[in-house]
Amino acid sequence: MQKLLEIVRGAGELMLSFADVAVTSKGRHADFVTEADVAVQNELMEKLARAFPGAAFFAEEQEGNRLGDGLTFIIDPIDGTTNYFRRRRCSAVSVAAVQGGELLMGAILDPYRKEMYHASAGGGAWCNDVRLHVSDTPMERALIGVGSSPYNTELAERTGRTVAAILPAAGDIRRTGSACMDLCDVACGRSEAYFEWILQPWDYAAATLLVREAGGVCGGMLQGDVRLDGPMAYLAATPRTYDALQAIFRRIAAE
Amino acid sequence: MQKLLEIVRGAGELMLSFADVAVTSKGRHADFVTEADVAVQNELMEKLARAFPGAAFFAEEQEGNRLGDGLTFIIDPIDGTTNYFRRRRCSAVSVAAVQGGELLMGAILDPYRKEMYHASAGGGAWCNDVRLHVSDTPMERALIGVGSSPYNTELAERTGRTVAAILPAAGDIRRTGSACMDLCDVACGRSEAYFEWILQPWDYAAATLLVREAGGVCGGMLQGDVRLDGPMAYLAATPRTYDALQAIFRRIAAE
Repeated sequence: MQKLLEIVRGAGELMLSFADVAVTSKGRHADFVTEADVAVQNELMEKLARAFPGAAFFAEEQEGNRLGDGLTFIIDPIDGTTNYFRRRRCSAVSVAAVQGGELLMGAILDPYRKEMYHASAGGGAWCNDVRLHVSDTPMERALIGVGSSPYNTELAERTGRTVAAILPAAGDIRRTGSACMDLCDVACGRSEAYFEWILQPWDYAAATLLVREAGGVCGGMLQGDVRLDGPMAYLAATPRTYDALQAIFRRIAAE
Repeated sequence: MQKLLEIVRGAGELMLSFADVAVTSKGRHADFVTEADVAVQNELMEKLARAFPGAAFFAEEQEGNRLGDGLTFIIDPIDGTTNYFRRRRCSAVSVAAVQGGELLMGAILDPYRKEMYHASAGGGAWCNDVRLHVSDTPMERALIGVGSSPYNTELAERTGRTVAAILPAAGDIRRTGSACMDLCDVACGRSEAYFEWILQPWDYAAATLLVREAGGVCGGMLQGDVRLDGPMAYLAATPRTYDALQAIFRRIAAE
């Protein structure tokens, strides 16, 4: 675990070392990659391969990802790429270690605040050396993080209807632009939930372990468990709000 | 101006000095006030009254606000109260000086990052000692700050439809939970716009001068100029996105 955290810390320093980054469109709406994403991912993969010989990689800026049974690192070099190149100071490095389909370790670094969120299976959830617990806030005062699926404009209508349904039922919504940071907020008790109609494993793999170890619940927006081998409609929430949110999402999906 | 900034800095220190604050509902949905809001407002009003004898006050945590012609300070002691007591580290102290209905000075402090945003009429917009300019990002890549009017649940449906209309037209949405911080983002070029269907003068008075001095446009979501004597449907945006956003909002309002 210490080795993983050290490597992630180095990646955070590299991420902050870029002054003005070159931005390239990935082709889809609002989907961008910077030279920093690529450099951070390369450094993570090189150092992890050296520290954990034989490990495989499932990473955002890599083609043909497949999740095998051996030790695999699921990597998002910079979660919140748009925030990163827009200088919004809300992005993270995220690395999860998975074996046989089970989450073993997760590390998420907020390099701006120098906060390392980390969890290991059965070992609790932590921010630096502070133990994390989800909140007990009731649904009517809950803060719900909204994933707006900006790359999938066909979901805009559904996301709008979801916002309209959540606002009167909960306290308010938030939209930071970094799924990882939203999920860290849930683990810390700064919000009660985060959802997105289509989310990729590198966005939530490490944070799923963090939220669960902090006492939260992660799964599908409509049903089922978290899958790590491909995208899903993802929901992480406190035990007190999960069912109420799933009921809202099921109603929206049935409309 | 220096006197105003000094007083606002003191208010920011007072704001951060509260460890666990007592929270009281104001009666409406998701509308809260803490003992810190009241203490910060009292300190601001006392110190400003001493430094600017005869000045009047138009303040969030005060009854019977009316805007006269003399020197008046429009005050939001803690903008983003929910963020404040949820420890989201995204809240601000906001003070505007108005005379004869005209904005003279504005100061907004982010006490977490120790960033003082300030502007005076004709003197430019600044963050600490860095001059600010709005962005030139086109609408299809624009980040749009969404005000979700959580106190007015009857607007939830309209806010949801607005989100659905903006997502395919712009790059993405953001929702920080602090109108002031969203408007500072527009002034800094970290986003292109912020809107809310009902917003109060203390939320936008200081930031309106900041955004305008940074080259942005502030006014009504559907039409007209900024009013400082009561709530309005508020829009601040870059020159490149203002008209396109107004066209979307007019379509929504006509539905």
